[in-house]
Amino acid sequence: MKRVLIAGGCGFIGSHLCDRLLQRSDVERLVCVDSLWTGTTDNIAHIRDERFRYFQGNVEEFQSDITFHEIYHLASPASPPWYMKEPRRTISANLLGALRLLDLLEPNGRFGFMSTSEVYGDPLVSPQPESYRGSVDCTGPRSSYDEGKRVTESLLFETRRLHGINVRIARLFNVYGPRTRVDDGRAVSNFVSQALSGKPLTIYGDGMQSRSWGYVDDIVEGITRFFWRDSFDYLGPLNIGNDREISVLDVAKYVAELAGGCPIVHVAPTPHDPTNRCPDLTIARQILPGWDCKVPYEEGVRMTFEWFRDRMDAEPARQGIRVPFAGE
Amino acid sequence: MKRVLIAGGCGFIGSHLCDRLLQRSDVERLVCVDSLWTGTTDNIAHIRDERFRYFQGNVEEFQSDITFHEIYHLASPASPPWYMKEPRRTISANLLGALRLLDLLEPNGRFGFMSTSEVYGDPLVSPQPESYRGSVDCTGPRSSYDEGKRVTESLLFETRRLHGINVRIARLFNVYGPRTRVDDGRAVSNFVSQALSGKPLTIYGDGMQSRSWGYVDDIVEGITRFFWRDSFDYLGPLNIGNDREISVLDVAKYVAELAGGCPIVHVAPTPHDPTNRCPDLTIARQILPGWDCKVPYEEGVRMTFEWFRDRMDAEPARQGIRVPFAGE
Repeated sequence: MKRVLIAGGCGFIGSHLCDRLLQRSDVERLVCVDSLWTGTTDNIAHIRDERFRYFQGNVEEFQSDITFHEIYHLASPASPPWYMKEPRRTISANLLGALRLLDLLEPNGRFGFMSTSEVYGDPLVSPQPESYRGSVDCTGPRSSYDEGKRVTESLLFETRRLHGINVRIARLFNVYGPRTRVDDGRAVSNFVSQALSGKPLTIYGDGMQSRSWGYVDDIVEGITRFFWRDSFDYLGPLNIGNDREISVLDVAKYVAELAGGCPIVHVAPTPHDPTNRCPDLTIARQILPGWDCKVPYEEGVRMTFEWFRDRMDAEPARQGIRVPFAGE
Repeated sequence: MKRVLIAGGCGFIGSHLCDRLLQRSDVERLVCVDSLWTGTTDNIAHIRDERFRYFQGNVEEFQSDITFHEIYHLASPASPPWYMKEPRRTISANLLGALRLLDLLEPNGRFGFMSTSEVYGDPLVSPQPESYRGSVDCTGPRSSYDEGKRVTESLLFETRRLHGINVRIARLFNVYGPRTRVDDGRAVSNFVSQALSGKPLTIYGDGMQSRSWGYVDDIVEGITRFFWRDSFDYLGPLNIGNDREISVLDVAKYVAELAGGCPIVHVAPTPHDPTNRCPDLTIARQILPGWDCKVPYEEGVRMTFEWFRDRMDAEPARQGIRVPFAGE
């Protein structure tokens, strides 16, 4: 039986991972720590399982009397307006979070870290294989997230090299779906919440920048297959995402259609917005046979639209909430 | 009058910077903190100046009742065998060191950080301008240093973007000269200490990898001109180094000649050893007019050879000390 710790378990992806962890019969205890910086207890309010414990606090300061067989570190904002507003805290959540969590890992325990396609920066090759070293401006306004993730990957791989811990690093490409914050600030959720608030959809730049959007169920399925299998020949970081590229403009048009028609406006481009981002999934398909992103964006966006609509209907006070800026 | 703090002031470059700081008449107090991980009090033993205070300890934990008008952060190992042995500590010294030091900076104070050409990784362009985003494997065995420096640059530039501190970041290329550790592990000091110990000079690989070695006096002169001038139009990181590229083999041959002839042997290449590293000094020459690396390598290596010889004569117990591996 396993004691499992998840940092960031009240977040968009973290809460879906909590649900999956509680489906496992070998989990004796699931401890969730979350600062509620971008996560919300709404995302775990449905959990009725006595194995589950939740603590509010910064992961860097998390205290525990027990150690854990598996630790999953997702404590970080993931959307530009959020991390650009608090870069120091972003670096701290990722790196100092990992330093703290490493001290709570059982000998021979497993450490899963949620990294990002942002480690590739504004890539000069497409699609991006895991071996691509990236094109990140370490002095730029997105750097706290990009470099915070990169240095945490370094810490974990170097800790494995010296001390032999079992490290799993997933580099997630754009993910969308239910439990995204209404004020997350990335394209799909922006468009959906704008459409549902009766506002025009704002596109940053010409909208021709492409993204490979993965629906959260597909992505979380890939993560669990990667994190929970006992052994692999492959020891590196793993791209997990959808390799079907869609332009931001196409998504906006589709959301406008779902909403029964609404205007689309173009505003100035976001600084340092990558022009493309698409995973090379060659390794993922080799080591996770049968896994793939199965939900087409039309269906995923529709489900997300309905989830947002139900939620905004239930909580009218949240309608029209400030949408910081998009670009993802 | 300025209160100045230097972290890593007992190190190779840090101690030279202490000497320069004490030549300034506007410095009221110079506080040096050093863990003596790779630094040594031998490097500051000559200082007789009542403005100078030295504290032994890790920069991350440094406590001070006073704040500082200028802070210079050099607390980090810089040689691969040292940082590869303690990657966690390397990341910590750089990033957690910077986090600690930022809290000790006066409002509107100046923060100088010693970064490195290693932020460029194994570069795909030569020479490397500051705008080059680098080619660093963030999962590789050199990554604790490379990524530790990159994320610290990010923290400082992002802190400036949000809070307006005065940040100066120097990216140093290979530096050599007096006060290098005998067991530093990089090429020039390895060759010199091997020659003086009557051992063959070991070259990792074919020796055709090139480096641009800067003599410490020239490099420290560039640093002081960059760190101490009150204002610049240029706000980015600055390459400081020698742009004359010399192969590792040529340096070995020259040291062998200085020693009156000694054998050169080739051993297996160091993993992830960059094939080239050369600064693009266009910006440095614009903003630091008159500055240049004036000491040719033949003269610099000779002065280094003589300094090592005097030191090893004085302390015979240090002769034959373990030389970990070269590659720089």
